[in-house]
Amino acid sequence: MKMKQRMLLYMSLAALIPSVSFKATPAELQAPDLYLMPMPKTITFDTGRLVIDDNFKAVLAIGEDSRLPASIVRFHQRLQMKTGIPLNFASSPDIKQAMLEIQCKGPGERVQSAAADESYSLEVTDRNARLIAASPIGVFRGLETFLQLVVSDDRSFYVPSLRIEDEPRFLWRGLLVDVSRHWEPVEVIKRILDGMATVKMNVFHWHLSDDQGFRVESRVFPKLHIKGSDGKYYRQSEIKDVIAYARARGIRVIPEFDMPGHTTAWLAAYPELASAPGPYQIERRSWGVFDPCMDPTKNIVYFFLDSFIGEMAVLFPDEYFHIGGDEVTGKQWDASARIRNFKVREKMKNNRDLQTYFNRQLLKILKKHGKKMIGWDEILHPDLRKDVIVQSWRRQASLAEGAHLGIKGILSFGYYLDHMRPASFHYQIDPLGKEAANLTEQEQERILGGEACMWAEFVNPEIIESRLWPRTAAIAERLWSPFSMQDTKDMYRRLEYMDIELDLFGAMHRKNSDRMLHRMAGGADFEVMKNFTDLLKATGYSTRRKARQYYSLTPLNRLADAIMPESETALRFEILVDDALSNQFLSAELIQQIQERLAGWQNMNDTLKPVIARSYLLEEAKPLSELVVDLSKTGLEALNYIKARQKAPEAWQKKALDLLDGADKPQAEVLVAIGPSVRKLVGFAADIR
Amino acid sequence: MKMKQRMLLYMSLAALIPSVSFKATPAELQAPDLYLMPMPKTITFDTGRLVIDDNFKAVLAIGEDSRLPASIVRFHQRLQMKTGIPLNFASSPDIKQAMLEIQCKGPGERVQSAAADESYSLEVTDRNARLIAASPIGVFRGLETFLQLVVSDDRSFYVPSLRIEDEPRFLWRGLLVDVSRHWEPVEVIKRILDGMATVKMNVFHWHLSDDQGFRVESRVFPKLHIKGSDGKYYRQSEIKDVIAYARARGIRVIPEFDMPGHTTAWLAAYPELASAPGPYQIERRSWGVFDPCMDPTKNIVYFFLDSFIGEMAVLFPDEYFHIGGDEVTGKQWDASARIRNFKVREKMKNNRDLQTYFNRQLLKILKKHGKKMIGWDEILHPDLRKDVIVQSWRRQASLAEGAHLGIKGILSFGYYLDHMRPASFHYQIDPLGKEAANLTEQEQERILGGEACMWAEFVNPEIIESRLWPRTAAIAERLWSPFSMQDTKDMYRRLEYMDIELDLFGAMHRKNSDRMLHRMAGGADFEVMKNFTDLLKATGYSTRRKARQYYSLTPLNRLADAIMPESETALRFEILVDDALSNQFLSAELIQQIQERLAGWQNMNDTLKPVIARSYLLEEAKPLSELVVDLSKTGLEALNYIKARQKAPEAWQKKALDLLDGADKPQAEVLVAIGPSVRKLVGFAADIR
Repeated sequence: MKMKQRMLLYMSLAALIPSVSFKATPAELQAPDLYLMPMPKTITFDTGRLVIDDNFKAVLAIGEDSRLPASIVRFHQRLQMKTGIPLNFASSPDIKQAMLEIQCKGPGERVQSAAADESYSLEVTDRNARLIAASPIGVFRGLETFLQLVVSDDRSFYVPSLRIEDEPRFLWRGLLVDVSRHWEPVEVIKRILDGMATVKMNVFHWHLSDDQGFRVESRVFPKLHIKGSDGKYYRQSEIKDVIAYARARGIRVIPEFDMPGHTTAWLAAYPELASAPGPYQIERRSWGVFDPCMDPTKNIVYFFLDSFIGEMAVLFPDEYFHIGGDEVTGKQWDASARIRNFKVREKMKNNRDLQTYFNRQLLKILKKHGKKMIGWDEILHPDLRKDVIVQSWRRQASLAEGAHLGIKGILSFGYYLDHMRPASFHYQIDPLGKEAANLTEQEQERILGGEACMWAEFVNPEIIESRLWPRTAAIAERLWSPFSMQDTKDMYRRLEYMDIELDLFGAMHRKNSDRMLHRMAGGADFEVMKNFTDLLKATGYSTRRKARQYYSLTPLNRLADAIMPESETALRFEILVDDALSNQFLSAELIQQIQERLAGWQNMNDTLKPVIARSYLLEEAKPLSELVVDLSKTGLEALNYIKARQKAPEAWQKKALDLLDGADKPQAEVLVAIGPSVRKLVGFAADIR
Repeated sequence: MKMKQRMLLYMSLAALIPSVSFKATPAELQAPDLYLMPMPKTITFDTGRLVIDDNFKAVLAIGEDSRLPASIVRFHQRLQMKTGIPLNFASSPDIKQAMLEIQCKGPGERVQSAAADESYSLEVTDRNARLIAASPIGVFRGLETFLQLVVSDDRSFYVPSLRIEDEPRFLWRGLLVDVSRHWEPVEVIKRILDGMATVKMNVFHWHLSDDQGFRVESRVFPKLHIKGSDGKYYRQSEIKDVIAYARARGIRVIPEFDMPGHTTAWLAAYPELASAPGPYQIERRSWGVFDPCMDPTKNIVYFFLDSFIGEMAVLFPDEYFHIGGDEVTGKQWDASARIRNFKVREKMKNNRDLQTYFNRQLLKILKKHGKKMIGWDEILHPDLRKDVIVQSWRRQASLAEGAHLGIKGILSFGYYLDHMRPASFHYQIDPLGKEAANLTEQEQERILGGEACMWAEFVNPEIIESRLWPRTAAIAERLWSPFSMQDTKDMYRRLEYMDIELDLFGAMHRKNSDRMLHRMAGGADFEVMKNFTDLLKATGYSTRRKARQYYSLTPLNRLADAIMPESETALRFEILVDDALSNQFLSAELIQQIQERLAGWQNMNDTLKPVIARSYLLEEAKPLSELVVDLSKTGLEALNYIKARQKAPEAWQKKALDLLDGADKPQAEVLVAIGPSVRKLVGFAADIR
């Protein structure tokens, strides 16, 4: 026991994963300050390090898959980006020169399936390293781990000596990207795939059609993209390019064509598919749920879908095909005498039965074209039980219930990135949460994993990456790493590093956010802006939708769009406040640090005011800047009571709490992020006896 | 006179260009805080503004060239990037909706020539704007001006009402990019072309071969790129793509194949062309001037060059072809009995005559393939006088002398970006400087313009943009704008904005510099690093080459590579010090500001030390960080003497000057940029009576 405590002193990692162990005695160990994310299943540390210098070379010793050589070139390129050291990897590989030897024991699948083996083992000594995997996908995952292991200290870039055995906890670790509400060009999609590969995600769920746009070139029904996209669609050559790009990184691409609802853009092109007479137009007025809907009673709809799905089934090789199926209002169905009669004739009790009828026809079409069906919660019906995967946006409990009934599912509840929840919120959402505790092992296996969802009402090519990264890395870890990974503080420590790592490898979330702030500040002092906006955090879909009427073409160029979903500065401040208040022996040094920060924020307004005054885009920031001052002032007052060990007067408390309650409400669709920490100071000052 | 003073109060612009004028009376004028670069030839301001909102639309009213519609789409996209306002430019253009009407009065050239008409006029009222140009190139230039005119204030994005008549002072405004010493991929080249278009440059001089690499696919002589490039070469399809990209932006592409010297990479592939027996290898040991050289006495050399230039003449459509011709050591020629005999036989006095003989043969080959010759100073010889353009890296005087003798020339002396001189240095170098004062108008016209040169010993894809931008914009202005533009302070004011503008439009100089600093800091606090490195400036080729032995594969991942050529922070500090010391009535407020900054820098080391200690890449920064402390301390001491109006003691002066002299010498190939300002403070303190 004493031994174990000593180990914890040396290795904060030991607190995190039961399976971290040490080959050497703790006294010999240095503490490698690792930033792995997602954390591997087991790590055994040894003493020593593998130095990364210009002699480094990774060589494929065993492996046939054509993706492997390209992945190794890419690995070298990214290692160059990470270290700035030019690596000579163009010349012919000689296994004797290998500092990292790669063995891929088995073949790759022609089309990557959900059952792909992603496991790998990685052994690093002070002389060389060896990566062994059963499949190319395992090699890709292991190379990402190796890249993350590369750190530097006062001596060199290096990888610590260790042994890793790793495999994912869930086989389905996806990211949905909605390109209908706002369009994303191929270069952005590729950058997103790069980020997904970095955090070992394996399903790119491409939400390609919705009321606001149909985004794929159809050669069979060209009006779909011509009339349904305002020119913003992917050519089939581009789709193939993206799929190849994803496949090279061990990522499946699953298309979603949402139906029978969310189909206004289809109906703008082919109104004859609708349940009510047209004409229809691409939905440009607002976001939400609309009534236009395909007519499940018309044979022409199924003829159409047979041809369309036949075309798309070839274009998208994945075994799964997502048919959406969510949020059918049923109003068009109720309004149509013909459809009402059909329901009576077919003895359907309700619109749910009618939608299931539609889905059964779809299922037949999908089967004909060799595809399996996946859809949102709403497709769930006893008739479809065995044949579908349900993607749950509702509750974890429904996923568990489904699994109990024999239905496969993936979780998206709790993973909606557009809700702008903090990474810590997503991190605690588990597909096998307490709702699944009573399931048998077999039933649990039906819960395949989860998908983060990037709905696009409030993102565009400039904004999407700051809504994805780094938070998605926390979800990726939840889906890959052992359940026992639950230390939020350590997750944030690593997430901060991943944020920089993703930027280093090309993600644009940081640059684009700065760019937008520059635009708002005009020629004015950027540092002043940045110090202010670092204290803010963005709000999510529901807040923004209530705040004002948004149209497809509403400019997303305001503070609410430019700032990050979480404030690193506020997070660090919260840790400082927690540390300072963690016991009654208040550290004078920590109190001093809190005081300095609050004083700095209180004084910020003098330099900020003229910057705000110059920009019409910043006008709405004025109350926020004043709130920062007020909160800082209140925090300083609380600190004075705390330092004097004097209970804060009731009247002051009331005033402070009123301010804090007000600060919990968004202004200009933005929140000041230091509120909760100031509340802790106020609470502490109130509790002094 | 009084009137004029009032105007100056309103319009700092008025100080800059004689041709700025006002339609309205000064009292009616607001001061539009414009950031144009290069500054147009004439601007007439009126009251009013054209608001830029989502109604904005540019429409081509007159113009046939196929590049025009694409340039207008690109203009809209970039206006979106600048404002964040989605513009509806996909739908069919209706001239009635035009907020900016574009008239292109004449056709474009099939291949853009040096004589292309780049003039345009732009009129902006509070209702709409009109851009009129004689050619598509003029439209491209005018659209860039319009984009730069877009600013925001507390009311909106807008363009002030005005009338601009503009045309370039010089017809040749180029940028040389060396891709031999270090390779640059196509995406980087395209970003560079975007930047060039932003600042209205019109010649991309592509230095494609040198001792360190031959970078073009040759189908006639494939060993050139196979043996001469380590796999880092442009496929012909990529060359065509780059030329089309440049042409779409009004930029000519001139290839340079340097010969007969600087040809080691050719000779590695075809040693039979050399003046001494091979074998040869791509030069990987160091930078500089090497002896391997083509043999001008062998017929096979001219057969080879005839075929090769024939191939390249088709690939590169520009009328000019750059044959280099610089830095032939002649050692191989002197060492060869056969070549010595040839010279005797042909009555050649020296190697210069032999090189001219070579150039005459080259000239015949170029003429045969429809090309005009351009080369470096060394090709100049009475025999070639009328037929060539000389690019002068030597002195402005030689350019003037040449012009007097009838030779056309362009200036590169003073425009070497790899020397890391400040923008202000380049800004004062003029192709028609005082050396040209005595030339006739006709003689002056032979001086066609200039080219900035980005030699690539110390740049790679990650570094090149921070060496190009924003400094190249100052050279671009020198070559475009009236000679009367000489206000360095105002140039810097606008350059700071261009820096951000270039970043906004996609240049990576800022992001890559930050990325490199992040890499060096590891997981450590970036802000601390940044505050420190903002005080430093990079050194140039000669300093670095002396400092250590560099190889092609030497990592460029150190402080000297990551930091900028100029320190904005130091520039601002210098302005502050100049203002404070500008008269004997020292402003207490300014003195206070100086004191605060110096005190901050003096204290920086405490937080910086642990960051430096953690990173082997930062070890060499330690003396620099100590120098910052010492300089700040000395500055504060000087300030105390100044505040007390007490002459600084001799002993203190001597110590301070020793420190400052030391600070003028680079450490770790880096300079602390605040030295000159501290020297001013010390000098002021020493001069108190």
